[in-house]
Amino acid sequence: MATQMIIINGGSSSGKSGIVRCLQAVLPDPWLAFGVDSLVDAMPARMRASDEGLEIGADGGVSVGADFMALQAAWMRGVAAMARAGARVIVDDVFLGGASSQRRWRKVLGELDVLWAGVRCEAAVAAGREVARGDRVQGMAASQADVVHDGVVYGVEVDTTHTESLVCARTIAARVS
Amino acid sequence: MATQMIIINGGSSSGKSGIVRCLQAVLPDPWLAFGVDSLVDAMPARMRASDEGLEIGADGGVSVGADFMALQAAWMRGVAAMARAGARVIVDDVFLGGASSQRRWRKVLGELDVLWAGVRCEAAVAAGREVARGDRVQGMAASQADVVHDGVVYGVEVDTTHTESLVCARTIAARVS
Amino acid sequence: MATQMIIINGGSSSGKSGIVRCLQAVLPDPWLAFGVDSLVDAMPARMRASDEGLEIGADGGVSVGADFMALQAAWMRGVAAMARAGARVIVDDVFLGGASSQRRWRKVLGELDVLWAGVRCEAAVAAGREVARGDRVQGMAASQADVVHDGVVYGVEVDTTHTESLVCARTIAARVS
Amino acid sequence: MATQMIIINGGSSSGKSGIVRCLQAVLPDPWLAFGVDSLVDAMPARMRASDEGLEIGADGGVSVGADFMALQAAWMRGVAAMARAGARVIVDDVFLGGASSQRRWRKVLGELDVLWAGVRCEAAVAAGREVARGDRVQGMAASQADVVHDGVVYGVEVDTTHTESLVCARTIAARVS
Repeated sequence: MATQMIIINGGSSSGKSGIVRCLQAVLPDPWLAFGVDSLVDAMPARMRASDEGLEIGADGGVSVGADFMALQAAWMRGVAAMARAGARVIVDDVFLGGASSQRRWRKVLGELDVLWAGVRCEAAVAAGREVARGDRVQGMAASQADVVHDGVVYGVEVDTTHTESLVCARTIAARVS
Repeated sequence: MATQMIIINGGSSSGKSGIVRCLQAVLPDPWLAFGVDSLVDAMPARMRASDEGLEIGADGGVSVGADFMALQAAWMRGVAAMARAGARVIVDDVFLGGASSQRRWRKVLGELDVLWAGVRCEAAVAAGREVARGDRVQGMAASQADVVHDGVVYGVEVDTTHTESLVCARTIAARVS
Repeated sequence: MATQMIIINGGSSSGKSGIVRCLQAVLPDPWLAFGVDSLVDAMPARMRASDEGLEIGADGGVSVGADFMALQAAWMRGVAAMARAGARVIVDDVFLGGASSQRRWRKVLGELDVLWAGVRCEAAVAAGREVARGDRVQGMAASQADVVHDGVVYGVEVDTTHTESLVCARTIAARVS
Repeated sequence: MATQMIIINGGSSSGKSGIVRCLQAVLPDPWLAFGVDSLVDAMPARMRASDEGLEIGADGGVSVGADFMALQAAWMRGVAAMARAGARVIVDDVFLGGASSQRRWRKVLGELDVLWAGVRCEAAVAAGREVARGDRVQGMAASQADVVHDGVVYGVEVDTTHTESLVCARTIAARVS
């Protein structure tokens, strides 16, 4: 059966977005790509700095409120519905809850054929890339590097510490049926 | 019954995005916002200039190919599924097919309670705003100003020619139940 | 003698950027455009939220520190040097100090032929456009609307409250020799 | 004598921008950063695709016209003037003319104390990063990878093929006096 979704999980500045764009380039079919960044962009501006929405502390720690969780849950169902309707979909996410974040996804995915891809990057290297991006709160990359993978089960794993995005994308693409 | 979706239709540079951001600010609940721009961003880069994807001519004329239509159809179903799952959703779209674009939406909306909002802007004024944006192909605004409303039925209509985005948003918000 | 620089002054969300892009489109020669936004982008990320750099309060109030002022002074000299070297240059700025900001510019402009253009917008309308942009701290537009024009002398003034960017740009362009 | 300017030269997608942001983060003084991208942004939109401005071919080849060259020459003088006025300035550029591009800079730099930094990246790796960025014409990275360094003399050279931006930035920063 053909892979209907690829769910990519990794910490901030681990290189997920670059891998997604490379996947869209190397996969012969056109795949739609969504992610936690596009979800946040879809929310009201006032939710980007509030108790009910998304709060990023001065140390890069992220906390999400009840409104955020509710909108995210509906968004997850919608993204799964796109795949069910025939679009091939890549999602990049940050499993702040590790295995429990994966369980949350599994509940909405049902019978869909999903490839789970883990993107790792050594904390120190991710922290350096966070500096190079210039627009991120320092500390987020290091704090997320390990916890997002805690207890998560993958079909394929890549590590961007010493491997280019395009090479990682090809490794993932090789597992797409 | 509570309004579950607001679908906003208008030509390029008619002021849809500003109205959407104002709606998200003035509506007390948090609403998710998606649109044709975020859909195009979700597609592979190669589809932004191809026969199968989206082609923008030197005169601002837009043509969409088979792959674009197929991904868009699945995306529409997914956005409707988000609303069904409890998120309140604003969509901004450009009905290149006028009434037939609206029929396409109706097929996926089913029983959802939808407010249809038309955003008009005089072609000459929209063309001027296109110049002020600086990043759009000249001609798109004028060519879409009227045709996108052809045969479309609305619950509320606003005109940005002489009315600010925030005032238009309040007019639309007043029709949200 | 040919106009060598156009310096456009107005509060946040008064419509300066749109007017600048329209000026670049309607003026037959190619003009370079710089402004306080591009200056801030040129500074280290850490200066965007610090005592020594640029601080934007929760109410939209802006304060600039010593390092910001020093870099800005050198930048102003450099922009004037571009005009002296033959480029025609548009600058958009926010005269937080009113007349004293203009005096600061005059010191570096020397013999250059400069057109001073004031961009006004009613505070309530600018505040609404601030909402429509979605990425600005609320309150900045209203707090700057009047003070930036305090004691400033212009060669031409426009008001975007009821007039489109392109029309304002044509009014300014008509004063360019 | 203190270094007044750092001029960084490298092909498209070689990693210049990330290095610049890291330099701004690791250097204790605040440095202004400009580059060929910010110069192009400062030009009228119509120059981004014209004989007189900047043309990017379907194969990623770049050609610049007479108007572009004239504005660039004035911009170079202005950037040098900023350094003379006391700002410490980083410039990133793409020396399409190799040694002759460096000579063009030398003419405007006069007595300034400049650190020339070369940023290399293997063509195949740069081409892969071009795919990962998603917004670049494919082919530009490979076509520029070597020619931009042809005959150029550097005070320090780094290679991003296997070395992170932050590490490269520290190597360059160590040569700043």
